[in-house]
Amino acid sequence: MRPNTTLRAWRAGQKTIGAWLSAPSAHTTEVMAHAGFDWLCVDMQHGLIGDADAMNMLRAISTTETIPFVRVPWNEPWIIMKVLDAGAYGVVVPLVNNKEEAERAVWAAKYPPMGGRSSGPARATLYAGSDYQAHANDEIAVVVMIETPEGIANLDEILSVPGVDAAYVGPSDLAYALGMQPTGDNADPKHKQTCLDIMEACKRHNVAPGMHTGSLEYTKMWLEAGFQMVTLGSEVGFMRAKAASDLAAARGDTNTPRVEPEA
Amino acid sequence: MRPNTTLRAWRAGQKTIGAWLSAPSAHTTEVMAHAGFDWLCVDMQHGLIGDADAMNMLRAISTTETIPFVRVPWNEPWIIMKVLDAGAYGVVVPLVNNKEEAERAVWAAKYPPMGGRSSGPARATLYAGSDYQAHANDEIAVVVMIETPEGIANLDEILSVPGVDAAYVGPSDLAYALGMQPTGDNADPKHKQTCLDIMEACKRHNVAPGMHTGSLEYTKMWLEAGFQMVTLGSEVGFMRAKAASDLAAARGDTNTPRVEPEA
Amino acid sequence: MRPNTTLRAWRAGQKTIGAWLSAPSAHTTEVMAHAGFDWLCVDMQHGLIGDADAMNMLRAISTTETIPFVRVPWNEPWIIMKVLDAGAYGVVVPLVNNKEEAERAVWAAKYPPMGGRSSGPARATLYAGSDYQAHANDEIAVVVMIETPEGIANLDEILSVPGVDAAYVGPSDLAYALGMQPTGDNADPKHKQTCLDIMEACKRHNVAPGMHTGSLEYTKMWLEAGFQMVTLGSEVGFMRAKAASDLAAARGDTNTPRVEPEA
Amino acid sequence: MRPNTTLRAWRAGQKTIGAWLSAPSAHTTEVMAHAGFDWLCVDMQHGLIGDADAMNMLRAISTTETIPFVRVPWNEPWIIMKVLDAGAYGVVVPLVNNKEEAERAVWAAKYPPMGGRSSGPARATLYAGSDYQAHANDEIAVVVMIETPEGIANLDEILSVPGVDAAYVGPSDLAYALGMQPTGDNADPKHKQTCLDIMEACKRHNVAPGMHTGSLEYTKMWLEAGFQMVTLGSEVGFMRAKAASDLAAARGDTNTPRVEPEA
Amino acid sequence: MRPNTTLRAWRAGQKTIGAWLSAPSAHTTEVMAHAGFDWLCVDMQHGLIGDADAMNMLRAISTTETIPFVRVPWNEPWIIMKVLDAGAYGVVVPLVNNKEEAERAVWAAKYPPMGGRSSGPARATLYAGSDYQAHANDEIAVVVMIETPEGIANLDEILSVPGVDAAYVGPSDLAYALGMQPTGDNADPKHKQTCLDIMEACKRHNVAPGMHTGSLEYTKMWLEAGFQMVTLGSEVGFMRAKAASDLAAARGDTNTPRVEPEA
Amino acid sequence: MRPNTTLRAWRAGQKTIGAWLSAPSAHTTEVMAHAGFDWLCVDMQHGLIGDADAMNMLRAISTTETIPFVRVPWNEPWIIMKVLDAGAYGVVVPLVNNKEEAERAVWAAKYPPMGGRSSGPARATLYAGSDYQAHANDEIAVVVMIETPEGIANLDEILSVPGVDAAYVGPSDLAYALGMQPTGDNADPKHKQTCLDIMEACKRHNVAPGMHTGSLEYTKMWLEAGFQMVTLGSEVGFMRAKAASDLAAARGDTNTPRVEPEA
Repeated sequence: MRPNTTLRAWRAGQKTIGAWLSAPSAHTTEVMAHAGFDWLCVDMQHGLIGDADAMNMLRAISTTETIPFVRVPWNEPWIIMKVLDAGAYGVVVPLVNNKEEAERAVWAAKYPPMGGRSSGPARATLYAGSDYQAHANDEIAVVVMIETPEGIANLDEILSVPGVDAAYVGPSDLAYALGMQPTGDNADPKHKQTCLDIMEACKRHNVAPGMHTGSLEYTKMWLEAGFQMVTLGSEVGFMRAKAASDLAAARGDTNTPRVEPEA
Repeated sequence: MRPNTTLRAWRAGQKTIGAWLSAPSAHTTEVMAHAGFDWLCVDMQHGLIGDADAMNMLRAISTTETIPFVRVPWNEPWIIMKVLDAGAYGVVVPLVNNKEEAERAVWAAKYPPMGGRSSGPARATLYAGSDYQAHANDEIAVVVMIETPEGIANLDEILSVPGVDAAYVGPSDLAYALGMQPTGDNADPKHKQTCLDIMEACKRHNVAPGMHTGSLEYTKMWLEAGFQMVTLGSEVGFMRAKAASDLAAARGDTNTPRVEPEA
Repeated sequence: MRPNTTLRAWRAGQKTIGAWLSAPSAHTTEVMAHAGFDWLCVDMQHGLIGDADAMNMLRAISTTETIPFVRVPWNEPWIIMKVLDAGAYGVVVPLVNNKEEAERAVWAAKYPPMGGRSSGPARATLYAGSDYQAHANDEIAVVVMIETPEGIANLDEILSVPGVDAAYVGPSDLAYALGMQPTGDNADPKHKQTCLDIMEACKRHNVAPGMHTGSLEYTKMWLEAGFQMVTLGSEVGFMRAKAASDLAAARGDTNTPRVEPEA
Repeated sequence: MRPNTTLRAWRAGQKTIGAWLSAPSAHTTEVMAHAGFDWLCVDMQHGLIGDADAMNMLRAISTTETIPFVRVPWNEPWIIMKVLDAGAYGVVVPLVNNKEEAERAVWAAKYPPMGGRSSGPARATLYAGSDYQAHANDEIAVVVMIETPEGIANLDEILSVPGVDAAYVGPSDLAYALGMQPTGDNADPKHKQTCLDIMEACKRHNVAPGMHTGSLEYTKMWLEAGFQMVTLGSEVGFMRAKAASDLAAARGDTNTPRVEPEA
Repeated sequence: MRPNTTLRAWRAGQKTIGAWLSAPSAHTTEVMAHAGFDWLCVDMQHGLIGDADAMNMLRAISTTETIPFVRVPWNEPWIIMKVLDAGAYGVVVPLVNNKEEAERAVWAAKYPPMGGRSSGPARATLYAGSDYQAHANDEIAVVVMIETPEGIANLDEILSVPGVDAAYVGPSDLAYALGMQPTGDNADPKHKQTCLDIMEACKRHNVAPGMHTGSLEYTKMWLEAGFQMVTLGSEVGFMRAKAASDLAAARGDTNTPRVEPEA
Repeated sequence: MRPNTTLRAWRAGQKTIGAWLSAPSAHTTEVMAHAGFDWLCVDMQHGLIGDADAMNMLRAISTTETIPFVRVPWNEPWIIMKVLDAGAYGVVVPLVNNKEEAERAVWAAKYPPMGGRSSGPARATLYAGSDYQAHANDEIAVVVMIETPEGIANLDEILSVPGVDAAYVGPSDLAYALGMQPTGDNADPKHKQTCLDIMEACKRHNVAPGMHTGSLEYTKMWLEAGFQMVTLGSEVGFMRAKAASDLAAARGDTNTPRVEPEA
């Protein structure tokens, strides 16, 4: 089976940088796949990405060595199973609140006896190799998102669930959880501290800590802090930021609009 | 944020006329968007419309001032959140049976602290403006459908749920609920009375009453009766009715086939 | 091979009524295919229909006994060959100006030795039967459009070309050709007389005369006049006309907008 | 209503042979629909098939007399309702564990009073006829899959649920359920015996027994054993097997790779 | 008819800044349409954009006031007519070599008596208004590309053709024409001088001069020089440049890869 | 630049085996790309494949080392340029009749000064590498089809055109050219001898001879005869043949339908 280089990097204590995909386009996905990120995440939750789109995007990523993840729209076993059959090497599961929900995500992502994933990796065997089913339970990453009051409260029990490989922070939803306005890169000390607390809990449980950002500045900050799965931005965000700043400069505008992250 | 003119009309006690969309076509949607209806509803329940189709249809409506609604296929939080992220200004939720289900729909449609909608309005901010998240809880309409025996029995508790803006009657399913055959525009006195009872309950709870029809005749009747959200027909229904009557006339047929409404 | 009932009707001196398709939607196409027209024409010239769309629409028509035609965007052999391979039972070729252009259209539509059509009816054999290639030259209709000054001037030589089965009038372009504004159903006496002249020329050459309309009134008029291939309207036109008139009536408007034909 | 010839064959004690579809392509589907199988099953669980794809594939099958089934990705009422509205004549429901889950599947597939299916057969009436709703409860097949330890343990209660027409074995998941590796056509005696036990239970409950295979050999074996709904293979499997064996032979290779079934 | 603000700006001697679109995605197109460019150009020549994609992208641009152009893949009348019917407000025609080819482009873009465009603006009337055909000849821009040895040699006769509104330089092809390697932003003095010569010729003929760039630097340079239609970059180029530079910075790389323009 | 292993094999006098793709499906294409053929050819002439489909299929092939070819629908420069920009490593040009047509094909496929290909390899540089344009003229294969009476008569002049890498025989069209019925694998001695004559002419001109077949038998025969580019069959043909023979065997039929090749 083709190795999951990102998951192996996490297990080795290394850091990875990825990008988010929110446009349902195989072409922009393929361009991003050639940009050199460690992994790309097809966002089926907030991205404008339907089920057929996700499959085409996974194929586009497969033209390179970049590792393909999918953020599913919900902690639904059938959606997790479907994107794994299509060749995702990891699922990012939003809004995980407690141990039961974390177990539900792992159950969907693992073949028996570890879980209840149904057999039928239609495209995964093309991408991963014919020995896929024998190794998938070891190579497929399960990433739970910590971004709700319940999730924060139940952090230790969530991170204790066997099969949880990483915990990923969605800063906008986390802001809501902390009673703040949903800005992306958040400079509020309480918000920052919560992120660091989550990171520390991950370290205690041998789970890779992950963080969504919308800027180089925050990416560097969180990498330095110790996060192992850091999102630099989305393809649409990169496009928008560069188009906006260059257009403003071409027109002689002095103040460039700030583009917020989306997750 | 771009105002939801339909929701504001309801709050002002005014009536609106809309149409249903059941063909997964951005072109027919754009044509309908230019036809002058107050709102259009993309039907993901009974229409042949997948998730990617719905997004394209919402874009087509955005070329005009017509307000875009989506009927979700089920009372699933993630689907409600996804169509709102794509720019729907209202969700029509089928088969709502009781208070808990109404609360579940509202919860999915509202950002914290009013609900649990996750942050990430990828396309909604393009359509609505960059201040979308600050005002979305006020401008996005939640429409529950009353069409089951349980829904009728629990009408008052459903309509009491804060955040429910309108209650919409599906006459075919309502016929089933009343033990009748599922005709669309239904002349049965008991059926009519039930519709009027629902309308009266809406008035008591300051909720806009809504009604699906498949004809001008019923649209006029229900508008006069006091319904505020009335569907004149679907794009496919209009096409079919006109094609059938003109073809029959061109061939000299005397009896035109009657086309039934679909919802 | 499945018979081309429309072509056979023309050969038997009978009249047929069809409709135009300009929305790239397999669903609206399938609905129209069930409406009872003799034939449907996928409009790749002015309709918003790409090559992949046309193939899906031909498939949708194949769920019924309605005969599928395609108006190609231009008199290009490869496009004619491609839509025939996809199962069209007739091609409508726009803007034919002279004998050479008519011969070019026929050449593309006929297998050797009658023409130069390349062998490879990938979908046509599914639709028509495994003996397709042995009979296609007899069953596939070639329809040339007469709508330019040159086409009118060279009418007799065009209609003399062996393999031309019908000549179809596009009234808007014909209006341009006559120095008029491009209205669809055209009441101008000179325009009408030109249409009748074309019809008479068709009769002389044993070619079926065809006419595009946008209304029941003109369809009846031209059927009575003797046209054998009359278009009652388009799927989008039916939808728009009915939506507009019903909406105006529902709102109590007295004057209904008039929807013009498109071809 | 167009009769469900496959369901009627089962009721008459006859055997049927079908094929599985896992590629989201209307063209390969149409080719398969002309191949002469009794039924085809669009696999939305493990196939790479999204909701819009499934609708297009159902349309392609409708160009022939082959009966269209859909395997839904999960026992979700809204998905079952949606594929039935799109014209499926049967639903295959994976991973049914007990009586309640079987009842849930039947409830979604049947109109009141037998179930809770919502009214709105948008495409089904085109395919089946205008009297669809009056007869759908009799003509639409509900097929539950038996492939989990719970499903095997609760076999009799599942098969007792009114409205269950067939029980279908997924051999790979069944292997997991029996603690084996997930091979498709499984020669293990315990696996075979379990399949036969399920078949016998079906006979007791007057339910048609069904079996997935990936080869002619197993298809013949299970047909002889008495299974009434046997899958010979998938369109992708046929393609792959023939391409692999012919290519190996063309190159002079002596050992042909063995292609495993997917379900 | 909705005014072509870009064409009017050129006629008033003003400068405009636009962007190129090469990804077949309505979502990235809509994002770019909200970025504030004067116009966007859907590139059907070198972009990965098919005919159906172009139509969806034109719709996405129509959600804003940005003016939609299309670069057609070739100087083919039917393709020019088709994209105009779909609502393009200008066509960019590649590789124009002489007067006859310029006349051919204008002929395709203008209704009679000025040209030979066929009547049937299916989507254009939605976007532009019902009086579209009366004003289209005045509002639709025809942009010829000067990028071949013949085009340079015949510059004056090309720019003399009535109906040519702008002449656009493709710097990569121009480099080939000058015997150089095809870099995008080209610092070679001979290349620069040729661009300036083309600009001066445009001024003499009252035609707007246009220039493709791949950077802010060249955009500013050419705007200052007097070009009126300057392309700042493509959506894919913006995305790639920002992703590459930020990723390199996040990793601590010192040399950022340079992304070349594409046209 | 990624090497064109197939073209290099031809230049080294080696033989290659490929397959034809006629279904517009990225999934079946990806499956075929993993089957081990030397090259795959996306058939835009007789396959049901539009421009957007072709691009997706090229992407699917790029997940493997298999070399991607495209048969264009016609000898049109813009189509040849477009598929090369999308990453095709060779174009198969149908119906080449003489030297001028062969030169036209080469002109479209080669950058200046060898030809007139326009600069803008949007996807090709992703697939091939950033040095694509410097090497493309050497690595991209131009394959002309010999299948008309004129093509046969002008064989030597066609094969003398610099840049022609291979000459490919379409046996069905060749049968028409010889006055025969269009069977695929053709046992007629005159047909066979013509194929051999073409092969010998290729050898004289140092051009790789190519042959389309629909069976293992003919593939072996023509490989032995000396053809260097032999098509074993199409993905749809493999699927159909295996489905038909296995279904017949499962039903106990004795005579299996013979599936004819398509090109």
